[in-house]
Amino acid sequence: MTVPEHAFPVMSATDRIDTLRLTRTPGVGPINFTRLMTQYGSAGAALAALPGRMRKAGRRDDPAIPSVSRMTEELERLEKLGGRMLVRGDADYPLLLSCIHDAPPVLFTLGDVRRLSMRSVGIVGARNASAAGIRIAESLSAEMAHAGFCVISGLARGIDSAAHAAALHPGLTVAAIAGGLDHVYPPENATLQRQIAERGCLVTEALLGTAPQARHFPRRNRLIAGMSLGCLIIEATLGSGTLITADLAQSYNRELLVVPGSPLDPRSRGGNQLLKTGQATLTENIGDILQALPLDLPRREAEPWQRSAGHNPPLTGFSEPSVVWGSPENEGWVDPDVAQKTVCALLSVTPVAVDDVVRRCQFSVSAVLATLAELELGGVVEFVPGGRVALLPN
Amino acid sequence: MTVPEHAFPVMSATDRIDTLRLTRTPGVGPINFTRLMTQYGSAGAALAALPGRMRKAGRRDDPAIPSVSRMTEELERLEKLGGRMLVRGDADYPLLLSCIHDAPPVLFTLGDVRRLSMRSVGIVGARNASAAGIRIAESLSAEMAHAGFCVISGLARGIDSAAHAAALHPGLTVAAIAGGLDHVYPPENATLQRQIAERGCLVTEALLGTAPQARHFPRRNRLIAGMSLGCLIIEATLGSGTLITADLAQSYNRELLVVPGSPLDPRSRGGNQLLKTGQATLTENIGDILQALPLDLPRREAEPWQRSAGHNPPLTGFSEPSVVWGSPENEGWVDPDVAQKTVCALLSVTPVAVDDVVRRCQFSVSAVLATLAELELGGVVEFVPGGRVALLPN
Repeated sequence: MTVPEHAFPVMSATDRIDTLRLTRTPGVGPINFTRLMTQYGSAGAALAALPGRMRKAGRRDDPAIPSVSRMTEELERLEKLGGRMLVRGDADYPLLLSCIHDAPPVLFTLGDVRRLSMRSVGIVGARNASAAGIRIAESLSAEMAHAGFCVISGLARGIDSAAHAAALHPGLTVAAIAGGLDHVYPPENATLQRQIAERGCLVTEALLGTAPQARHFPRRNRLIAGMSLGCLIIEATLGSGTLITADLAQSYNRELLVVPGSPLDPRSRGGNQLLKTGQATLTENIGDILQALPLDLPRREAEPWQRSAGHNPPLTGFSEPSVVWGSPENEGWVDPDVAQKTVCALLSVTPVAVDDVVRRCQFSVSAVLATLAELELGGVVEFVPGGRVALLPN
Repeated sequence: MTVPEHAFPVMSATDRIDTLRLTRTPGVGPINFTRLMTQYGSAGAALAALPGRMRKAGRRDDPAIPSVSRMTEELERLEKLGGRMLVRGDADYPLLLSCIHDAPPVLFTLGDVRRLSMRSVGIVGARNASAAGIRIAESLSAEMAHAGFCVISGLARGIDSAAHAAALHPGLTVAAIAGGLDHVYPPENATLQRQIAERGCLVTEALLGTAPQARHFPRRNRLIAGMSLGCLIIEATLGSGTLITADLAQSYNRELLVVPGSPLDPRSRGGNQLLKTGQATLTENIGDILQALPLDLPRREAEPWQRSAGHNPPLTGFSEPSVVWGSPENEGWVDPDVAQKTVCALLSVTPVAVDDVVRRCQFSVSAVLATLAELELGGVVEFVPGGRVALLPN
């Protein structure tokens, strides 16, 4: 359902603080956020129900819901810095990112949020890029910005920095970062990070003061892939983080473009591999990029919990709609406990694709997703960007 | 029809001299050679009929058939050099080359002719190759030879020379050259050319003493493409001779493989273009080549004029079998004079694909080919390697 922009409900300050508290509660990932908001109609109602839901899902300790005062303080600090919090369903939330199934419930931004919903291309690549790679990144980024595209990257050394810098003059660049908006990383990019906040936009999932850790980077990569019509890879070794971004872009059905390179350079291997398998378009110039990217942006859709005139009336029970589970009287009914045991047996601490879980058991996609979401609430599993799921170490 | 090798008729010395005379007569290209041999059963009979055929086809002057003494002398000089003449239909004629529609009627070889019919890969590329390109050519060529393949190239500077040299040790290399066997080109490759003759094989269409000219190179490229299961391109600028070899390989339904390179290097453009359009397989290592090449060689087939127990009985008339033209009484009959005028109007001195001629007129492929062959006998057109045809300047 498409709704005109004026129909997006404006959240109250309390709603926003509750939303932030809900999304910062361990066990509430993007999928459970959608589920809880849809079932309870508001973050406040979901928070009230959460302890009961989590206990029922098997969690022994109380959920670690952040306090109102801590999250109020967080938003005050954000405001003081000149930043904004965007919630899924906000008119300024990145348009393409809102289309992915595990879109982050909240984002923190510093800069011009209009940059987040433009026609955009991700340009990513090696930190230890070659001089040739840097030159290609600069020229393609500048040309894409000249053509009116926003250039999205991850503010890393090498290709990322070159891509940002080349699109900075018209302000057509967005840096997705792994740490908080007030944390400079890498240190030598302090000026570039400030300039992007002034002329383009910075965006992150992390709270203020967060120093980026290795585990944050796949989330950062998800933002780049999710906000872009397509991702251009310039130099990537096999097994590099750049290929994680490429994987994510593919899982979101975005275009993949690769600048080829000599097989003698290990930095060409990752990209050449994508070309060899036909997953990416060989890219030499801006024409190749423009030809590969879709012409149109999708229309902005309301989030499920915004689709009634106001909010949904709170649901009375904890169970999924019967469309997921069927009813005990009907053929094809799935016992949630049986489903949970079956699904758990297919998981390990190494993330596996949710699709693989579905393929290996006899349940529907929606039943598997509901089971996994319930296991997340119970503190048993966590979802990993790119449609994967892992057992949490206990 | 497949015939066992002992069934290949052994040509007499006179037959061989007549065959050489026939193929060296202007107006008798590979297609007319097949036609004349099939119609008259032997080169001697075809030579006897040739002046009449050519006059009927519109030629005013007598055909320039080389004399018996000149061609005898040519073969004596070849024998003295240690070389051999191979005629289409000979058991030692290059197996894969014999499968193409415009295979050269005769070849001159120096070295081990068994190399000409092995599982082979063409490795070709830029004369002014980069150090990286040379290194890739050397390592892939050595590995392919190690895997038991023969490496075919054109003895040019750069990639070609590197490919030959790397496969020289096991003697698994064939150089297709544009000039005569006794002519060294390029001069700095004198030693390499001699070594290939000693340990591998040299092959050419040119008579002894011929200095290579620009117009000979497409014929040389046809030999490389025609003798190989596939061609590997390492560095090729747009519009380079290497891309002519690639075109020929495609026209013979051979595999195309390309080592990619940076868009900043003009020597990558030709290859990257082939990758971009999906015409070639991106190649980084020997595994990519082995996977792309067909596992089996075709079986050796007899040439049309060898397919009767002995030779065909000479045909009485000049006309094509009625299967080409139909009969005047039948519907669909084509008047050869009308066909000739229609086809001529579609030609110019710039070569066009025979396929394009067929598409633009209402005649069958075989009628168009017969018309063009008749025009070649008449001195009006010439066939160009790669299935193309051009008007001769008068």
